[in-house]
Amino acid sequence: MKFTCSKALLAKGVNTVLKAVSAKSTVTILQCILVEAAWGGVKLTANNTELGIETMLDAENVEPGTVALDAKIFSEIVRKLPDGEVTLTCGLNYITQISCGKTKLTIAGLMGEDFERLPYVERQNMFSISELSLREVIRQTIFSIADNDNNRIMTGEWFEMQENRLRVVSLDGHRISVRYVNLKEIYGNYEVVVPGKTLQELAKILEGRAESMVDVYISESYILFEFDRIRVVSRVEEGKYFPIDQMMSNDYNTRITVNRRALIDCLDRASLLVREGDRKPIVMDMKEDCMALSIRTAIGSMNDELDIRKEGEDLMIGFNTKFFLDALRVLDEEEVTLYLSGRRFPCYIRDEAETYNYMILPVNFVV
Amino acid sequence: MKFTCSKALLAKGVNTVLKAVSAKSTVTILQCILVEAAWGGVKLTANNTELGIETMLDAENVEPGTVALDAKIFSEIVRKLPDGEVTLTCGLNYITQISCGKTKLTIAGLMGEDFERLPYVERQNMFSISELSLREVIRQTIFSIADNDNNRIMTGEWFEMQENRLRVVSLDGHRISVRYVNLKEIYGNYEVVVPGKTLQELAKILEGRAESMVDVYISESYILFEFDRIRVVSRVEEGKYFPIDQMMSNDYNTRITVNRRALIDCLDRASLLVREGDRKPIVMDMKEDCMALSIRTAIGSMNDELDIRKEGEDLMIGFNTKFFLDALRVLDEEEVTLYLSGRRFPCYIRDEAETYNYMILPVNFVV
Repeated sequence: MKFTCSKALLAKGVNTVLKAVSAKSTVTILQCILVEAAWGGVKLTANNTELGIETMLDAENVEPGTVALDAKIFSEIVRKLPDGEVTLTCGLNYITQISCGKTKLTIAGLMGEDFERLPYVERQNMFSISELSLREVIRQTIFSIADNDNNRIMTGEWFEMQENRLRVVSLDGHRISVRYVNLKEIYGNYEVVVPGKTLQELAKILEGRAESMVDVYISESYILFEFDRIRVVSRVEEGKYFPIDQMMSNDYNTRITVNRRALIDCLDRASLLVREGDRKPIVMDMKEDCMALSIRTAIGSMNDELDIRKEGEDLMIGFNTKFFLDALRVLDEEEVTLYLSGRRFPCYIRDEAETYNYMILPVNFVV
Repeated sequence: MKFTCSKALLAKGVNTVLKAVSAKSTVTILQCILVEAAWGGVKLTANNTELGIETMLDAENVEPGTVALDAKIFSEIVRKLPDGEVTLTCGLNYITQISCGKTKLTIAGLMGEDFERLPYVERQNMFSISELSLREVIRQTIFSIADNDNNRIMTGEWFEMQENRLRVVSLDGHRISVRYVNLKEIYGNYEVVVPGKTLQELAKILEGRAESMVDVYISESYILFEFDRIRVVSRVEEGKYFPIDQMMSNDYNTRITVNRRALIDCLDRASLLVREGDRKPIVMDMKEDCMALSIRTAIGSMNDELDIRKEGEDLMIGFNTKFFLDALRVLDEEEVTLYLSGRRFPCYIRDEAETYNYMILPVNFVV
């Protein structure tokens, strides 16, 4: 096997598939990147059996062949090569030489036979979304997936497609995050729960271009993302997601509009007083045009006041500081609006255009 | 106790003394910053008994008093305060309120009585050096102190003052780093071994202004650095430093000039093939106007070539990749010159102006 391509192209390709390499597997082949040269170019593949990524590169002087290279060593070597044309040659016993100008590095490769290739995914249940939108909806929901495997379906995100509207949902028992995207075309009605880890790695690869589209295909066991000569295939979570429509309400007795940055800064200071595992809430006391915030923990206490615009009843309610901060931090608006129904009912942070809806459960407190 | 000062000034002061707070002490008072208000302003002090730092701040509305505050909580609160005037008030039982606008935070303080103040250092054996030069000589030598306590004096750096010339030396048994600075005035002859940890923390505080001077005082047990309303006091290492003049030589048989960046890039790639604890050397084969570099380890092999200018004999010699990289990385020159005497003799990297001299011992290799 042999091929030549630019260092920049090779480095980008290796870095892309690297996201699907097992961090700590005992199976050697799972820690490899499969390099396949054919007349049409070069294909790089990594697959940890949950998540697989492949990408195609243009190459010259291609002599067909296949070798599996240790992902860590291979990626570090490629990254540190001089800029220029890189030639990769695999010879007897899969000994592989990577050369660039006068620099020549040689490492041992493995036969690619044991390497598990990406599964075939039926091209059905498709929708198309821009790289930018997909990256944004992941960023704005991924923080509220459950972080332990007790309930596996909670560690994923629910993608629900209805005609031209995509809904992405995550929840962890204390809060629900919902993002809506209106797509350009009308598709069918289908749904899938995508593992959180897949989405985290996918978000790192997506370059966030508004004009570049990702084609998504959903099959019984897999989800396939296709874009920019890259294919990302992931297993999906089995089972039915939670009936979140029953958990959300549009009613409210109090509506508050507040400067997002000011509220973040205030909660951020409050969080300094909260040790991990401490459940002491931040108490918000909303009256007229002022929200008084207070917290008292083993470390100390804080009092602060923010200007607000209020409609409806006065209300005093407590929240977990971190949960409130998480939701506020992923938003981009200068002002956010909170919808509240009483101190024992959830708070909703949502926008008029219905692009997002964050539900946060309140925490009991003693005045 | 009470005072008011700007958030920026307070944050800078707290951040400065924070460098002398014990990272993991079981003694509560060692994890505190002492805040002392007097008519003249406010003094912040931290002291972990090896290293102590104090700084003076201008303040208004000063009511005298003293309180010791947990350094971690206090510094995080100050950092996250809104910009503006901060008022600190210490009341009954050392309960301390930090307020800024409508934001009020309250934490528990401690009585400052147990707090160990900075030792008095006799103002003798003095020299004056710019912040910039002091920071540079630390950066350019600190990497080759010994990283374990087997020989305690090796974990420090030797400061030797002779008339107007300061020499700063570190060594770890494999290499010696020497930096010279010509000072503006003539001082006496004295020397001291300063703990590496002190220098690392000091370098973080020094702002690197060429026009701002640091006054250094050396006593029997302490070294004092005074600059910009800051005093840094450290214990010094006991005992006599190594007779390094006997270990260094100016003779050579081969003199090589090479592009520093090109050599770094090449050694950096070679280091990818070296696992921790692996002693496989990079072999440099210097002939005419070319240096061939090669390394072979359990991971793989590398061959490369660099353009050089050579005077004297051809030479093939092996080095620990990391030791060579460490020295090259702290230099700023576009080209460096290596002085060599044979494959069993040290390599010296030094400049004509005699501002630095790095000695690296060679490693045996099998051709």
